[in-house]
Amino acid sequence: MIDLELFKNARDGLRDIIVKTELSYAPRLSEIAKCNIFLKKENLQKTGAYKIRGAYNRISKLSDREKKLGVVAASAGNHAQGVAFSSKHFGIRCVIVMPEATPLLKVVSTKALDAEVILAGENYDEAYQYAIKLSKEQGLEYIHPFADDDVIVGQGTIGLEMIEEKKLDYVIIPVGGGGLICGISNVYKNLSPNTKIIGVVAQGARAMYDSFRAKKACNSKSVHTIADGIAVRDVNKKNLDIILECVDDIIMVDDEEIANAVLFLLEKQKLVVEGAGAVGVAAMLHNKIPKIKQNDNIGIVLSGGNVDVTMLSLIIEKGLIKSHRKMQFKTILIDKPGSLKNLTDILCKAEANIIKIDYNRISTTIDYGDAIITMTLETKGLEHQDEIREKLSCAGYKIDEFY
Amino acid sequence: MIDLELFKNARDGLRDIIVKTELSYAPRLSEIAKCNIFLKKENLQKTGAYKIRGAYNRISKLSDREKKLGVVAASAGNHAQGVAFSSKHFGIRCVIVMPEATPLLKVVSTKALDAEVILAGENYDEAYQYAIKLSKEQGLEYIHPFADDDVIVGQGTIGLEMIEEKKLDYVIIPVGGGGLICGISNVYKNLSPNTKIIGVVAQGARAMYDSFRAKKACNSKSVHTIADGIAVRDVNKKNLDIILECVDDIIMVDDEEIANAVLFLLEKQKLVVEGAGAVGVAAMLHNKIPKIKQNDNIGIVLSGGNVDVTMLSLIIEKGLIKSHRKMQFKTILIDKPGSLKNLTDILCKAEANIIKIDYNRISTTIDYGDAIITMTLETKGLEHQDEIREKLSCAGYKIDEFY
Repeated sequence: MIDLELFKNARDGLRDIIVKTELSYAPRLSEIAKCNIFLKKENLQKTGAYKIRGAYNRISKLSDREKKLGVVAASAGNHAQGVAFSSKHFGIRCVIVMPEATPLLKVVSTKALDAEVILAGENYDEAYQYAIKLSKEQGLEYIHPFADDDVIVGQGTIGLEMIEEKKLDYVIIPVGGGGLICGISNVYKNLSPNTKIIGVVAQGARAMYDSFRAKKACNSKSVHTIADGIAVRDVNKKNLDIILECVDDIIMVDDEEIANAVLFLLEKQKLVVEGAGAVGVAAMLHNKIPKIKQNDNIGIVLSGGNVDVTMLSLIIEKGLIKSHRKMQFKTILIDKPGSLKNLTDILCKAEANIIKIDYNRISTTIDYGDAIITMTLETKGLEHQDEIREKLSCAGYKIDEFY
Repeated sequence: MIDLELFKNARDGLRDIIVKTELSYAPRLSEIAKCNIFLKKENLQKTGAYKIRGAYNRISKLSDREKKLGVVAASAGNHAQGVAFSSKHFGIRCVIVMPEATPLLKVVSTKALDAEVILAGENYDEAYQYAIKLSKEQGLEYIHPFADDDVIVGQGTIGLEMIEEKKLDYVIIPVGGGGLICGISNVYKNLSPNTKIIGVVAQGARAMYDSFRAKKACNSKSVHTIADGIAVRDVNKKNLDIILECVDDIIMVDDEEIANAVLFLLEKQKLVVEGAGAVGVAAMLHNKIPKIKQNDNIGIVLSGGNVDVTMLSLIIEKGLIKSHRKMQFKTILIDKPGSLKNLTDILCKAEANIIKIDYNRISTTIDYGDAIITMTLETKGLEHQDEIREKLSCAGYKIDEFY
């Protein structure tokens, strides 16, 4: 465990730098989960994620000589922005190594914080190797995203803020490398030892889940999840040790559950939360945490909001189909004038909005004189879809739905 | 003007009912607009909009006899939820009349607050007529969405919260019927008369803009805007009188500007804001407010976040094309094996992600032996698109882009 005084000092240092984000009651989620849920909104933090806390605390402690030489970090995500923001604040040189395939938008937003961005390596691990090389060659201080006491202490300031505001029975925290949960759990085990600390990993990056159970570092061979912010392959002993000491349990959610949570937060809480930030809500929505009692007070950390809008759009589109607000089907018509009109008449009466249509008369699966029509409809929900199915069936159409 | 004491009393009454929403600094927007912008986040209010303030204040003042009979309102949106929420709080009967074409989702969320929902009329005005009829027949108290002192006073509590937190040179407020701006401007002209109050209407629902200039009520013939929360056709004299007394200017933004603002808030502020709620940010992003000086402190009210995800998805998709992250084009290939491979090889080298493809050999616009290929690419920005254009052009492809 790390000394509590360090966390208090870090908080003082961060006071005028970061936003003290809200910890606020979530009525709809509480109703579904039958307990009192409070969301800690680090997605509304500066740079859109908590990472700025650890990066700033780490960089603030550099000696004048180290500051003069500058820092280097490897990250395509929130850590990059946290390090760049903090370096800019202190006016020191900042080099960020990003994998070559990093979206231009992330490169641009990091450059906007005056960082030098170098694209190197096919994946995070190769970028990391390159950053270490640069660090040695140029005497730049390497800023690790999670296996570092000062970084852990910075992230842990979230715990101090939460403890002040509300007495919680559970705190639920996203876990990748473990910097965030190490910091928060360390604070809680000092100040509120009865609060249960639960970590949530993505199934596609389960290293810390396996390591927690095995009580030793078990790395993944590869990672694959929409929660890119916690897609960490290798577990570090420093983080695992604190987790084994301070964390009560680690659980897992899959990508489908994470996508549902992102959509839930968007629709019901009016918040943009990235996959990694939404795993706690995913766990609650899908009853992944055993032993929670009715009326328990649960804090969930929404760790960040930096989701690409392309991904958001995909999540919404899939969500519309799952929540019965979009419907896709094929049916066979007689290929003659008036056939399509009969079908659209029925859909018009059923108040279904046609948003896509395809007409195919040359498929080998149909008879000569027939045509396959493929349609996408905007619908109002399950009841409405059932009504449409009923009306089409009454009129003799056999529809073949697909997703 | 309405007596300031009434606003203070309303605030006391609302204290344990609503959330005191954050008024927080928006760094990115401030940088673009070259002044200090603070966002009042009523999209994070309970029920997702400020309307709960006015509805609650109005309903809290009903006599016991009136409470026993219950209330009725006409609305498909935020007012419906505000009235339903407040009625549920007092345990009184609540009837909401919605136009027949109201999305099922809005019906469901209003019913979830125990309201009786009646679908009547082809548009808001017909639903309103029906609500008035019900009010007379059943002795239900009609709760007007904006032309009512108690409603105006409730909305005005936002002004009290803002004044306490920050000295502002300008406050920018969405305007539909005018309930919100009447309340806030009334408070400001009492407590901070030098703060300029600017209203923003949607170009597709400009009644209050025209009325402000003509100094008399000018109704619109029809309304059409993505900002459905402020799509009000008829101006009420009560609201216009207060606006003429307390508001400094009213300006206009169009749907394109509103959509840009919604996307900006989603990407840069991690907030879901509906069209009506985003008009103030639209006005700032598009330099619609003259006379603002560098370093002025500007407060912008984000009035609500209840945007349908279908609309959000459309706004994102269009935004991706405008921000050069999606590219669509047609080109002509020789219709033989290997042709498509040559094209996809180039796109692969240019790191463009193909997300849609169509191959047409029977168009009458092309020669026999040719085929039209239509492609949608995911790209990283303008520079990347230029690189793709260059590579295709070097390889002899003539592309015809479309949007």
